[in-house]
Parts: sequence; structure tokens; C-alpha cells
Amino acid sequence: MEAALSGIRVIDLTRVLSGPFCTMLLADLGADVIKIEGPEGDPTRGIGTIREGLSWYFAAFNRNKRSVVLDLRREADKAILARMIEKADVLVENFRPGVLEALGFPFARLEALNPRLVVCSINGFGDAGPYRDRPAFDFIAQAMSGFMATNGEEGGPPVRAAAPISDLAAGLYAAFGILAALRARERSGRGQRVEATMLGAMLSLFGYLAPEFFATGKPPPRTGNDHPILAPYGLFRTADREIAVAPANEAIVRRLFAALGLERLLADPRYATNAERVKRREELRAAIEAVLVREPAEAWIARLNAAGVPCAPVLGLPEAFADPQARALGMVVDVPHPGHGAVRMTGFPVRLSATPWALRRPAPELGEHTEEVLAEFGVERPRDPR
Amino acid sequence: MEAALSGIRVIDLTRVLSGPFCTMLLADLGADVIKIEGPEGDPTRGIGTIREGLSWYFAAFNRNKRSVVLDLRREADKAILARMIEKADVLVENFRPGVLEALGFPFARLEALNPRLVVCSINGFGDAGPYRDRPAFDFIAQAMSGFMATNGEEGGPPVRAAAPISDLAAGLYAAFGILAALRARERSGRGQRVEATMLGAMLSLFGYLAPEFFATGKPPPRTGNDHPILAPYGLFRTADREIAVAPANEAIVRRLFAALGLERLLADPRYATNAERVKRREELRAAIEAVLVREPAEAWIARLNAAGVPCAPVLGLPEAFADPQARALGMVVDVPHPGHGAVRMTGFPVRLSATPWALRRPAPELGEHTEEVLAEFGVERPRDPR
Repeated sequence: MEAALSGIRVIDLTRVLSGPFCTMLLADLGADVIKIEGPEGDPTRGIGTIREGLSWYFAAFNRNKRSVVLDLRREADKAILARMIEKADVLVENFRPGVLEALGFPFARLEALNPRLVVCSINGFGDAGPYRDRPAFDFIAQAMSGFMATNGEEGGPPVRAAAPISDLAAGLYAAFGILAALRARERSGRGQRVEATMLGAMLSLFGYLAPEFFATGKPPPRTGNDHPILAPYGLFRTADREIAVAPANEAIVRRLFAALGLERLLADPRYATNAERVKRREELRAAIEAVLVREPAEAWIARLNAAGVPCAPVLGLPEAFADPQARALGMVVDVPHPGHGAVRMTGFPVRLSATPWALRRPAPELGEHTEEVLAEFGVERPRDPR
Repeated sequence: MEAALSGIRVIDLTRVLSGPFCTMLLADLGADVIKIEGPEGDPTRGIGTIREGLSWYFAAFNRNKRSVVLDLRREADKAILARMIEKADVLVENFRPGVLEALGFPFARLEALNPRLVVCSINGFGDAGPYRDRPAFDFIAQAMSGFMATNGEEGGPPVRAAAPISDLAAGLYAAFGILAALRARERSGRGQRVEATMLGAMLSLFGYLAPEFFATGKPPPRTGNDHPILAPYGLFRTADREIAVAPANEAIVRRLFAALGLERLLADPRYATNAERVKRREELRAAIEAVLVREPAEAWIARLNAAGVPCAPVLGLPEAFADPQARALGMVVDVPHPGHGAVRMTGFPVRLSATPWALRRPAPELGEHTEEVLAEFGVERPRDPR
């Protein structure tokens, strides 16, 4: 079967992370993503560790794309972009609001060039509102969304997640929005604007924390690895390393206590109910760890999971990516990059049984496909007048 | 224009969070999501703060859906589900692997009932691999993915994010995968299986941390709010509260120093380059804070942003959701629930200009639409033989 998104042509004006992640998701499922770069290239070509002349950061987020160099300060190259837009399905950009317009491509013109075009913008704060023109950055979205205020240890400061999750969540929402707009186009025949923001993405990721805040007016406290309203729950010591134990309901707590030989706790009024256990979290932890320290983590992880109790080690990146389950999910791939060796990168996190993602080409050299793509679009490049 | 996903019928067998979030995203864009609940209902109906008889947690993640009660332990109700599947476009489930099969609906049967059906599974570890049958939970996916190992203060323990981001990311990936599979169906005429996992989702969200680890073999250290390879960067004190300052490149650092009247630092070899500044992070912080403490955060936030330096306060949930930018993005909505008052909840983080998301109906009462939906599907329910 053809790739899920084959036949969809994407003009990709994005740089660095949120936009390239969005278009990588589309490219991995078969969209023809044409990365338009200035003569200097996407900045990530020079960011992070360079091995055999290649940034592994750039390689990871630009696989399956083709690269075309256009200098959008030049009128001739703007004209080429306009011709390409006429024949594209999607245009994605992550400039600050107003930049695409300043380049001569306001939405009204894009729509006039191609009424079927889906135009997706990814940015920090959106195209309206008081902070529209502020520079954004992952850290800023984490700080302003409330995410940091909920993340961290009890009694400690608010902490930003090291992973730039607001970039990635905004990029993923954008990819979802683009597919929804393409589906709308199947029926209406017309494109539209799609916008995803780092701030909006982070605000949407609170799960039950948001409704609890709205219902009670009380913001969630930082509780580190403990759960604000469940006990036992958290990290527990064993003979060697800590394990995460997450009994989400009473039935699982009973299984946990049975597996530990601590059934007597359920007969003790001090530990019989979750409400009482939350009050005695530390005493309960001590009673549980007194059993857990008798054997190593691996034994407990096997035993508790077999008993139906969610339990896991806390893995660093080396262990996490080496883990047999991560490998079974295809989350580590080695991509041959001719001239640069093989590049290890993260796989694709969604499985489609009939139209799976595929590595069709490595991340492109700067401008590698300029001639090929312009020929496909039937655009001739004038000789450089400079 | 019609809603983006109007005409798409989704049979929703999911419970609690990852699945309901996925189907909420589809429902918000106009899909007809039919939530199948057992006689006891989705557990979230009884979780979290109940106001005027309604769980605000349930209300937030089940808006725009209809509820049909089927007892899948009964053959008669299984037969009804089979009839509904024949006429659906999508089926979504977040049982543990094997449960849907045990209920009598292995994929081969689903495909036989309806070759056009897209069947989406959301679970912790996926349908293969050594941990397939382990119980999963957000905390477990955060621990095993390496996310926790990167999250936390320098010198402190690994910390789980309080927001259940692995549930939400898996749900969002699933929604993206479903739309991709529906697009594939436009061309092939056939449905397929889609799978998103909490573990895979978390492994995909490292941004540059993953390629840096793969390229160097060195796992990223926990650095709290400091950046491992940039300085200045982080939280800084002002006259009243801390601000997040994120100058991502040298040009922005120069703007920051200019705005603070600290241009002299760039002439000082101890601070002229990022590499030197990272070595003197604390001295640099002291020099910057000596200026910042002269005025309150609000003044600095306005001034630094005007100078092009990403800068923000660290907001708690009350401030974050009350912020004018969050409101401009429509990220707070009040939904009238007849009989239960108005329920405040998070908005929808993607804007589609021509086919925007809409609140068409509040979260359903248990079984509210059983008769209506069964009639639409042309299924008659036998009288209850019990």
C-alpha cells in the first residue's frame, strides 16, 4: 500500500525544532516535505555535536525531507516560492507572527495563489493577544503555562523540564491540525489557516490538574514523585536501586500489600484507607521499604508487575533507549548518511499496520534537491544576477 | 463550512485519560464520538472533585461526545457493538493488550465486520515486546522513558512531572495517527490498525537531548532551570519575583546585556563567550541580579521582551489560566451543563480558521444517548432478559 500521506506536498519554511518536528511527522508517513532553506541553512545544521560533518540534531529532525535553497530576500526567489505554492498542499512556517507577511506572503496572497493550500503557523503565543510579538522559547512557554509551577520537588523551586516539550507538543498539535484541515478540504475543496502555539500546547497538557484547579480554585502543589492524593505512590528503595510504584486504585494497593506480605496493614485502621495512608505517607514508605530492601529492584519489578502492580525502574537515557521494550517499539533507528556514517536517532512513535512510517531518505544536504524540485514544479531558476 | 471531521463516526471504548483525550480531540473538530460505557460508567465519572453531581475531570475530557451504555459481558450487547462497528469509521480502545480480543473482537473480526474501519489502540507498552502485559501508568512511562532522569534540580533526584504527560502525548499521537489512517483510506478504501504507546510517546519528546546523547554517548545531566550549555539562562531574581530569561544565542545575549546596562561584560574576557560564561554561571547570575533587583518583574518583562529577549514570569495555574494571552487563545471555556451548572475547562489548542473547534454538547450523562444512537445505527435492543 502507498504511504499514508503520499501525494501530499508540503512547503516547509520552518527552522530549528517545533516546525521541523511537525514536518518530520508528516514526512515519516510519506508526505513530500520540501524544506526551503536560506543560503545559510537551518541553524540546527550548526547546533549540537557534529560527527563526520553532520549535526546529529539536524539529522534527527529532518529525515525524509528534501532541501531547496531559496534566498527570500531576493525577488527572483520569492517568485519561485510563489510558483511552488501554487502547486503545494500545505505550507508550514514557524516564524514570529508577521514575518511571512513581511516577506510578501500574507495569507490573502497565499489563498489567492492557491485556494486549496493549508497554511500552518507554529509559534509561541499565537497571531493575536497582548504577547503576539514577544519572542518565545520553550523555557518561556513552560514558565508562563503553569507547567513549571507544578513540576518539582515538595518544598523546592518550580522546575522546567529539560526536554523542550512545548516545542514538540506544539509541533505535534500542528501536524494533527494539518491533517484535520486536509480532511476538511476533501469536502470543501478549500484550504485554511492552522495555528498551534507553544503556550496553548502546554496549557492543554495538565490532565486532571486543570479540572481539579478549576473545580476547587486551589492550584496543585509541587509534590515531586509523591502523588498529591494517593499513598503509597512514588519512588521506593530496594536492595540496589529505587523503583517507581504506582498503585492507582484500592484494588492495586491490595495486590501490592499482598505481594509484599503486608496484608496486615489493611487491617490496621491507620492504613486501611487511602485518606489515612496519605496522612502517614512516610511511615508507610518505611514499612514498604523494609520489605523491598531485602531484594534487588529487578526481582521486585518482575514480581510486582506479575501481580498487576505498575512498577518500573527509573532509567537514564542510555538504559531507556537500550531497553528491549523501546527496541521492540522501534524507537531507536540507525540511519545511513552517505559521507557521514550512520546516525542513530529516535524512531516514530505511532504504528500504522498497513502504511507504517519508513525511512525513505536521510536528512538532506543544504540545497541537495534544489534543481530536482524546481524541475518537478516546472520552475526555471534565472541565472544568478549577482 | 462543515466541521473538519464531520461525518466521521468514532466508536469510543476508552476510559480515564489517554483514550478519552484522543477522542476529545476528534470530537472537538466535529467527529461523531460515541462513548461506549459499561453500566458502571467511565471511572472518571467518580474521580476528582464533584460539583453539583458532576466530576469536572470527566466533564473536561468527554465534551462533545455521546454516551451509550452497553454491557460487554452480555452477548446481546456484544452483538449490538458488532452491528455498530459495521457502520463506524474508527474504533478507539485503551484496554491492556488482549482485552478487546478476549471480549470477542480480535482485529481479524473487526476487519471482517468492516474492512474500512480504522482501529486505534492506546496503551502503555504496545502490543509486542517483553512488557506487553505489564500494567502501565503515567508515572511508569515517565520513569522508564528516561524523562524523569532528565527532569529535576542539579544534584537532586529524578522527578516525575505532575502533569500526566505520557497519557496526553500518547492520546495526541493516536489522534494524529487516526487522521493519517483515514487519509490512507481515502486512497486505498481500507482501514488499518493504529497504535500509540505512552512509552513511545515519551521517548519521542526529548528534542535535542536524544541526538546529543546518541552522538556523544553522554546522558544529559539534570540541571534544573539552568541550561546545560548556555549561560546566562534560567530564573533570576528581581525586586519582587523571579523571572525566566532565555537568551538562546549570542545576538540575544548582547541585547540582554544592553538592556541591563551590562555591555562591559562582553568586553571582559571572563564573560565574552558562552563557553567562558558557562564556567562562571553563578558570578554572572550575581551581576545580572544586581541590576534586576532594582525594579519589579513586570517592568523587566516588558523591557526585555521589547528588546527581543525571551522573558517571562513563572506563573501558577491561577495566573496562567487568567493571563490575557491564555484568554486570547481561547484556552479557558465555561461550558453550561444543564442540571450541573457551568463547568470551566481547558480550551482547544489548535486553531483552524475555516473549521474551528466548537462546543456542540457538554459531556454526556451515562447512557444519555443509548436509544438515540441505537436508532441511528438501526439496531434494536432486545428487552433485558435479566
